[in-house]
Amino acid sequence: MKCVRFEDLRTGNKRIGFIDGDVIRCVYGSLETYWQITDETFAMRDVRLLAPCVPKQIICVSFNYQKHAAEFGVEIPREPSIFSKAAHTVVGTGADIIWPKQVQELAFGAELGIVVKKRMKNVKAEDVPKYILGYTCANDVTARDLQRKERQWLRCKSFDTFCPLGPWLETELDPSDLSIRSYVNGVLKQDARTNNMIYNPYEILSYISQSFTLDAGDLILTGTPVGAGLLNEGDEITVEIEGIGKISNRVVME
Amino acid sequence: MKCVRFEDLRTGNKRIGFIDGDVIRCVYGSLETYWQITDETFAMRDVRLLAPCVPKQIICVSFNYQKHAAEFGVEIPREPSIFSKAAHTVVGTGADIIWPKQVQELAFGAELGIVVKKRMKNVKAEDVPKYILGYTCANDVTARDLQRKERQWLRCKSFDTFCPLGPWLETELDPSDLSIRSYVNGVLKQDARTNNMIYNPYEILSYISQSFTLDAGDLILTGTPVGAGLLNEGDEITVEIEGIGKISNRVVME
Repeated sequence: MKCVRFEDLRTGNKRIGFIDGDVIRCVYGSLETYWQITDETFAMRDVRLLAPCVPKQIICVSFNYQKHAAEFGVEIPREPSIFSKAAHTVVGTGADIIWPKQVQELAFGAELGIVVKKRMKNVKAEDVPKYILGYTCANDVTARDLQRKERQWLRCKSFDTFCPLGPWLETELDPSDLSIRSYVNGVLKQDARTNNMIYNPYEILSYISQSFTLDAGDLILTGTPVGAGLLNEGDEITVEIEGIGKISNRVVME
Repeated sequence: MKCVRFEDLRTGNKRIGFIDGDVIRCVYGSLETYWQITDETFAMRDVRLLAPCVPKQIICVSFNYQKHAAEFGVEIPREPSIFSKAAHTVVGTGADIIWPKQVQELAFGAELGIVVKKRMKNVKAEDVPKYILGYTCANDVTARDLQRKERQWLRCKSFDTFCPLGPWLETELDPSDLSIRSYVNGVLKQDARTNNMIYNPYEILSYISQSFTLDAGDLILTGTPVGAGLLNEGDEITVEIEGIGKISNRVVME
């Protein structure tokens, strides 16, 4: 099921629902806990899609595709290597990526995003699927110059708008072997499959949950494949994942 | 005013209030937005103090005291250097610090904690005071062996219980020159003043807000002074800050 958060363009209200043919069917409640289907529907032209989740925490894995690690001259990590992005990085498809004045080099990176369904601590990989609410397309935008200069990555990864997500959460998906691609102004830049991951999604969530507790709504980004390059002002960057859909965002200067 | 979150030991309910002489006077509402004083009071013996805030984001500054930076052989940073801790690190005074099985070396670090009052982005240092809800004692617990091994600090800083806070939020405080101390089993380990900070609290919050948006309830840790050492099983670690109070937590093995 494709779960969406959206703004009703007539009223400005923010709602949740799911894609039902060519309309959105509204639900009441919370995607993580309990919700009820209503009769109310919206045409896609009457809404603006928002990021499908509002995570408190965004935990990311670095160098999780072999060719991407090789590209950066990094050894294959013996364990997943994790970092975080701040909460206000999240925007939906169609929103602008704001290039901050203090940043010289802006990079994109297509990633499979996973939203946690319920609190998880010390969960084995084989039990992880029941803790997953859904999957979404993500773009791990990075200030590449700051990433080289600063030892900790929090800041270079955390400027507002640096985590486009969407277009929705796909709740029924086998993440093990999906095509993942990115395009800049329609030109293919990344083209890989999720089975090229060094640590698969279940292993990643299990690993993190063995260090600290994850909560319902937390977002996990699973790493970007080879080809994550730099952006220019005005570029449109698209991330597309098989079985989910695609998001597109334009780069504008602050 | 000393604002507390606490558990009513008779009912298990979680409440908020403030210290009024030798009792807690309850309030209804939210400390960040609007609250109303009630006539209801609790004796301290009838409550368990909880961490005074439940932050979504915890943003920390590293090497913010000159002698601490020198101790680690680190150059004085030209800008504040920031990293984050996960949300489930937070516990109150009196709670156990759980030493995870996978960690060899556990370190403490007394820090002044600052809770954000309202959303802040691009705020100048001189305007920061009106964005601060209050100050609290914090302990930035770290898995020192993982900190040496792993390039990003998120994991070594983020095991559950690695951020004791409390005993309350002091809302009326000039943070510029306070004594900050830590004790292990009553023996003084850190003894500094907040005017030894390289970047003062207002400069730190301003700097972060120029990178990304901070929200009401976010917690900022301002760095630890020289002497942040290692802990053993059973140790009781105390952090004391002038004008706030002190917190004590015992180390227990997972």
